[in-house]
Formats: sequence, C-alpha cells, structure tokens
Amino acid sequence: QFRAEFLELHPYDQARIFEELEESLRQEIYMYVSPEEMADVMEHVDDEEVEPYFSEMDPRFASDVFAEMSSDDAVDIMNQLDKDKVASFLTIMEQEDAQEIKDLLHYEEKTAGSIMTTEYVSLKASMKVQEAMNHLRTEAPDAETIYYTYVVDEDKRLVGVISLRDLIISEPEWTIEEAMSDRVVSVSVAKDQEEIAQMMRDYDFLALPVVDFQDHLLGIITVDDIMDVMDEEASDDYSKLAAISDVDGPNDNAFTSAKKRLPWLIILLFLGSLTASLISQFEEQLNQVAILAIFIPLIAGMAGNTGTQALAVAVRGIATGEIRKQGKVRMMFREASTGLITGVVCGLIIMGIVYVWQGNFFLGVLVGISIMSALIVATIAGSFVPLIMDRLNIDPAVASGPFITTINDLISILIYFGMASAFMNLLV
Amino acid sequence: QFRAEFLELHPYDQARIFEELEESLRQEIYMYVSPEEMADVMEHVDDEEVEPYFSEMDPRFASDVFAEMSSDDAVDIMNQLDKDKVASFLTIMEQEDAQEIKDLLHYEEKTAGSIMTTEYVSLKASMKVQEAMNHLRTEAPDAETIYYTYVVDEDKRLVGVISLRDLIISEPEWTIEEAMSDRVVSVSVAKDQEEIAQMMRDYDFLALPVVDFQDHLLGIITVDDIMDVMDEEASDDYSKLAAISDVDGPNDNAFTSAKKRLPWLIILLFLGSLTASLISQFEEQLNQVAILAIFIPLIAGMAGNTGTQALAVAVRGIATGEIRKQGKVRMMFREASTGLITGVVCGLIIMGIVYVWQGNFFLGVLVGISIMSALIVATIAGSFVPLIMDRLNIDPAVASGPFITTINDLISILIYFGMASAFMNLLV
Ligand SMILES: [Mg+2]
Ligand SMILES: [Mg+2]
Ligand SMILES: [Mg+2]
Ligand SMILES: [Mg+2]
Ligand SMILES: [Mg+2]
Ligand SMILES: [Mg+2]
Ligand SMILES: [Mg+2]
Ligand SMILES: [Mg+2]
Ligand SMILES: [Mg+2]
Ligand SMILES: [Mg+2]
Ligand SMILES: [Mg+2]
Ligand SMILES: [Mg+2]
Ligand SMILES: [Mg+2]
Repeated sequence: QFRAEFLELHPYDQARIFEELEESLRQEIYMYVSPEEMADVMEHVDDEEVEPYFSEMDPRFASDVFAEMSSDDAVDIMNQLDKDKVASFLTIMEQEDAQEIKDLLHYEEKTAGSIMTTEYVSLKASMKVQEAMNHLRTEAPDAETIYYTYVVDEDKRLVGVISLRDLIISEPEWTIEEAMSDRVVSVSVAKDQEEIAQMMRDYDFLALPVVDFQDHLLGIITVDDIMDVMDEEASDDYSKLAAISDVDGPNDNAFTSAKKRLPWLIILLFLGSLTASLISQFEEQLNQVAILAIFIPLIAGMAGNTGTQALAVAVRGIATGEIRKQGKVRMMFREASTGLITGVVCGLIIMGIVYVWQGNFFLGVLVGISIMSALIVATIAGSFVPLIMDRLNIDPAVASGPFITTINDLISILIYFGMASAFMNLLV
Repeated sequence: QFRAEFLELHPYDQARIFEELEESLRQEIYMYVSPEEMADVMEHVDDEEVEPYFSEMDPRFASDVFAEMSSDDAVDIMNQLDKDKVASFLTIMEQEDAQEIKDLLHYEEKTAGSIMTTEYVSLKASMKVQEAMNHLRTEAPDAETIYYTYVVDEDKRLVGVISLRDLIISEPEWTIEEAMSDRVVSVSVAKDQEEIAQMMRDYDFLALPVVDFQDHLLGIITVDDIMDVMDEEASDDYSKLAAISDVDGPNDNAFTSAKKRLPWLIILLFLGSLTASLISQFEEQLNQVAILAIFIPLIAGMAGNTGTQALAVAVRGIATGEIRKQGKVRMMFREASTGLITGVVCGLIIMGIVYVWQGNFFLGVLVGISIMSALIVATIAGSFVPLIMDRLNIDPAVASGPFITTINDLISILIYFGMASAFMNLLV
C-alpha cells in the first residue's frame, strides 16, 4: 500500500522522501520496487549524494538500476563513484548497456558529450509516416523524448528532423523525407554546454541532436538537462564573482566549506599585503598629515565597487552572448565613458563632503580628484580584464570580484598618495 | 526569392537579419510577409528594441501581427510600448484577441500571469482518445504546445493532464478520463516566476498549467519562456551582488549605463564616508603610531572578501531552493564555524607576515587578531543578513556585495582601532 502511494508520486517527490528514510526502510524500498522504478528515483537524487545508496544496494540490483536509467544520468552518477565500483557494476551489466555507458564516460566534463543521452528515437527517410508513428509508439516508453525525432541515412548520418507535432498532422502515406525538415540544427560532441544552453534558449528547442565531425548522430540533449546546465553555469559565474570555488553545497560541513573559501582568501591576503606595503612607502607623508589615512578605505572601496559593477556587466554580457552580438570595441568605449561620468559625479560629491566636514579645501580637492581618477581607472580595469580574458579563451569569470577589487585597491591608493605627495605643501 | 530564403530560416535567425536592415528594406519585408510570419520574427526580437518596428508598420498590419503572436509575447512587447499606442492597436483588433491580451496585461510583472500564454489546448474528460487526437491535429498550428494537454470539467476547472506521449500509446476508444493523470501539478496565477522556474527544473516539465484560486485553467507556461526567466533571474542576482540596477543592456549608451550604476555608487559613497568618519575618531592613535594606517585596507578588504563569499553562498542557496531543503539553522551554524576556521588560518598567516616584515611582535598580534575577528564577524554578517531578509520576505539579493562589504569595512575598522587603542602602550 505504501508502495502504491509512493509510486503515484512524481519521481522528484519520491526522491525527496527516499532521502529522508533510514537505511532499514531504504532496504525495504529496494525489495519492493523494480529497478526501473528505482532508476526514476535515482535520476532525481543529487549526484553528490547517491554514493551511499548504490553501495548499500545488492550489486545485481544496483547494476539493473543503472541499466534502466537514462544513460546521461547513469554517467553523471558513475562520475561520482569510485572507479573500481563502476567497473564492477559494468561487468554485471548486459554487454550493450555497458558499452553505451562506457562510451559516454569518456567525454570531457561540460561538453555536449557529457550531457547527451543515447535514448533517442531515429527514423529512416524512406519510412512512411504511418510506420514512423508505430515505431514511436513502441519506442515511447524508453525514449528520453519522442517529441523530436531525428532522421538518419544508412551510415547513421543526420539528415533531418521531424517533430511529433508535424508527424501527427502529416498524411499517413507520406514518406518521412517529404514530411521532415532538412534544416536540422545540431551541435558537435565537444561543444561547451554553456553555448548549447544559449542555443536552446534562443531557438526554443526541446532537444538538440549531437553529432561527431562527420555528422554521425551520437545522442541528444534534452531541455530538462539544459535547465540544470543553466543553473550550474549561473552558480559558477556567481561563485567566481564572489571568489569562492563553488557556491553550491548545502550539505557541506564547516570544513568542506572553509576548504572552498580558504585558497582564495589566502591569495587575497597576500595581494592585500601588497597594498599594505604600498602604503608603507608613504609613511613619511602619513607622519606629516595623519588625516590622510582617514580616506584610504573610502577611496579603495569606491574603486572596488565600480570595478565590480563593470566586471559584472562584462562577464554577464559574455555569458548571455549579448556582447558578441554588439561588439567588444563599442562596449569598451562605452565603459570608458561610463567611468568618466560616474567618476566626475562621485568626485564632485565627495569634494563637497570633505570640504564641509574638514573645512580644508585642498584636502577636498585631493580626495575628489583621487576618487574621480580611481573610478575611471577601475571601470576600465573591471571591463577590459574580462574582455581580454575572453579573447584569450580564458573563462572571464575567473577575473572575480575580489581580484579586481584588490587590483583596484592598489591602483587607487597609488593615485591618492601619489597626488598627496605632489601637493604636500598645500596640505600641511 | 529573398522571401523564400528568408522564411526558410529559423525565426531567431530571421530576427537577427531583420534587425540589421535599413528602414526601406524593412518596409519591403512588411509588404512581402504575412502578419503570421512577421509575428514569428517579432517574437524573437528583444522586447526593448521592437518599439520602432511597430511604429513604422501600417497600424492595421501591426495589429494583425499582434493578433498572430503568442499572447504572452504580444503582452511582453505591449508592456514596452506607450499606452495610447497599445489602446489604438487593441481597437483595430478583433474583439476576442483584444480581450485576451487586455486580460493578460493586468497581471503583475514576474508572476505566473505575466509569463503565461492563452494558446493552450484543453480537452473534456468524456472525450474519446481518437476524438482528442483529431482535436489536437486541428489545434496544432495555433497552440503553443500540444505535447501536454490539460483536461477541464464543464466549469473550466483543471482536472487532469495527458501528454501526447501517453495519448498516442492509448487505445483510440478509451476516454480521456481513463488515459489521463489526475495528479496534475499547477501553479497559481500570482506565483513568483523564480519559484515556477525551480518547479520546472525539478519536475522536468515542458509546460505548467496556471489556475486561479478556484482551480480554473487560465493559461500555460512553457519551458522556452522559463529558460528566459532563468536567465533573467540569474542576471538579476548577479546584478545585485555587484550593486548595479541591471547588468543587462548591451545597447545602453554611456549615460544609460552610468544611470544604472550611479545611484548605488552615491549610496556607497555616503556609507564609505562613515568609515572615514569612524577612522577620524582614532586620529590621536594614528598620530602616535602612523604605521597603523598601513593595514587598514588589508583588514577591511579581507572582511569584505569573506563577507561576499558567505553572502554568495546564502543568496544562491536561497535562489536554487537548496537552503529551504536543508534548514536555515543548520546553515547558520555551519557559516559561523566556517568563519572561525578561515579567521584562525588567515589570522595566523598575517601574524607571521607582519612580524617578519615589520619586526614588531605586538603589531603582528594586533593585525592577526583583528583579521581573525573581522573574518568571523564578516562571515556571520554575510550569511545572516540574506537569510533574515528572506525570512522577512525581502529579496535576499538586495543585500548586495558592496553593501555587505561596506558594513564589514565599518565593523573591521572598529575592531582594529578598538584593539589598537586598548594596547597602545605595547605598540609605541
Ligand atoms: Mg526513466
Ligand atoms: Mg551529464
Ligand atoms: Mg563554461
Ligand atoms: Mg527563447
Ligand atoms: Mg536527461
Ligand atoms: Mg560561464
Ligand atoms: Mg507563432
Ligand atoms: Mg516570450
Ligand atoms: Mg511576459
Ligand atoms: Mg524574484
Ligand atoms: Mg531537472
Ligand atoms: Mg511563449
Ligand atoms: Mg532572485
């Protein structure tokens, strides 16, 4: 009875319940559900959490579960398990299923190959629409989607695509060749998942065929997996803006989470020591006019803030593909002008504030001009650095917020103390 | 001939080409293509760019284009046009089309109502599968999707759902009631688009039905629009982490883009002045030990960096729904412990650096303990603030990076100078 109720639920909800159970209850579930039903549950458990479940299952059952899963999901999970265990599951599995999974395991992370699945339906161009419909009916239970079907020639080369929508409105006696579209958009197996997500979003596809360099159909990528990719890529960019290796990981304990943050913090600590040593070069000026120290965090902070803004615009624009459309040169000009405008406005405001507060006109001018120059330089640095990195094929998101901020700290302090030394006689 | 070639392309590519044309060529396009074909193009032009196109079209043609568009896309565009113009288009339009659009225009931005479309297919439970298939065939050209069909009772209340996959494998003489699933997941018309995107991603749906509080079917949301929502929400969180009102806008000129950044910069300028005024309270200490100033940006910077990391983890965890699953209390404990670990490690490192560099043991201890305490407090601030805001139903992403950073500047400087004053006699 629990079995019936449980299986009525959507696999996502089944997975949520399953994760809350004690081991003894999980063992009962393994007894009562089929490998196919278990496969649906496992497809909805977080890849990083499945390891204990597959270890506690009977190996025979576990390998049946893998065989029943969509191949893309099976591979995602196997990538989290230890290699010997994977090998032992593959040995028990039927030859054909095992081979499919082995092939997929070889593709590089974050490429089309690593997110595609092999449970697609393909048709021959010579088939009649009626036959194709019958073929789809038999394939439907195992296929990842039947809403797009890909048409291949004798060598398994991709020649067309037909949607189920078009198929059901075609006359039964037409051939697939007549009914299909031969303008089929495909992606190469090595293509980056982020670009594939952009294509899916732009073209509103539900699936995309993946081909090798000779146009042989290797698999398909479905939109549900692309939604996961979009989330993953967004978390990734977000992590980098915040200088942390991985923003995800709700199950991390304090040590794992410290381990994701410390490497960056230590690098930033050394970079920060550079700002300290830079300021120490101006110890003499500080001894003469101690009040200079007051404005250090303000100037460095404002440079950091504008730099982060410019960086975010550039990184996000590269991620969504917008900047490629508009042109980088245009973007650079705009950023330089934006820096000029924000610099002048903020410079004038702080000049007023400092003059009123400290009653020292020259100090106001010094701080104002420093902020003005710092903002202009920081905006340019924040936008040029990621654009140049993109040009050099480095992921622009690694030019993370804190790095740009620390660089801008250095630049702005240099500007500030440089000007202070030049006009020392006006200040004392 | 150009017409034939142009119409062969995917509407997304048609839109890219169309945008590059001069007005005279666009006018030719308006002559040669049907309103339906133009509608497909307009659906793929950025909403913020369509205004001139609809203004230069013959108003009759323009209103036909709107009538042929998916209602969700028509509404997105009309929200960008001036109200009088919209009213005039609606007057020329057929009553029924106009009414549908008017209804949609009323829903609040970023809710289910604002992203749903009314071009769905619905079935009666008493229909036979065969009849349903015929109904789908006639509706297919106009429907947004036919892959999910929703089943309603006489009062248009949602009672079930059937996928085309299930429909084609059902026996033709079954009733829809027998073939459908009555466990239909729906969303309320006022639901936030971000939560809807999470549901689609978790449940792998291609469409979701939208209902009012009495379960009447009002429209559907399709996965292609959810991909746009995911991008929009990711840009939104990213913008806020960088303190900028909108990271998108590749066509902005320098003034628009300065306008998006200046309000935040000016607020941050005033907040930054607070740090300046805080330091000025310690002028006496600075006069005695000018070297104290050297470490200000380092300490403030490190506090800012850890705060941003903690903030990013919390905001992203809330956005993907992961934190809700794991529990906030657990998260808070973990963050506090993470702060302790990173604080102790970084504190010890900088203690060593300062001691070796300056040869002053007490200065090393002072800077080390300051960084340690600053990191602990900053980590806690960075994670608690967004969690508390989420609790108060404020979008946690508005606790943006630079704000947290500025708050952490204040806290860390207070800690540093507080300790410096307490142990002044050891330093001089
Ligand atoms: Mg399955
Ligand atoms: Mg994968
Ligand atoms: Mg990438
Ligand atoms: Mg789209
Ligand atoms: Mg999949
Ligand atoms: Mg990226
Ligand atoms: Mg259309
Ligand atoms: Mg739309
Ligand atoms: Mg909308
Ligand atoms: Mg929201
Ligand atoms: Mg999913
Ligand atoms: Mg739509
Ligand atoms: Mg959000």
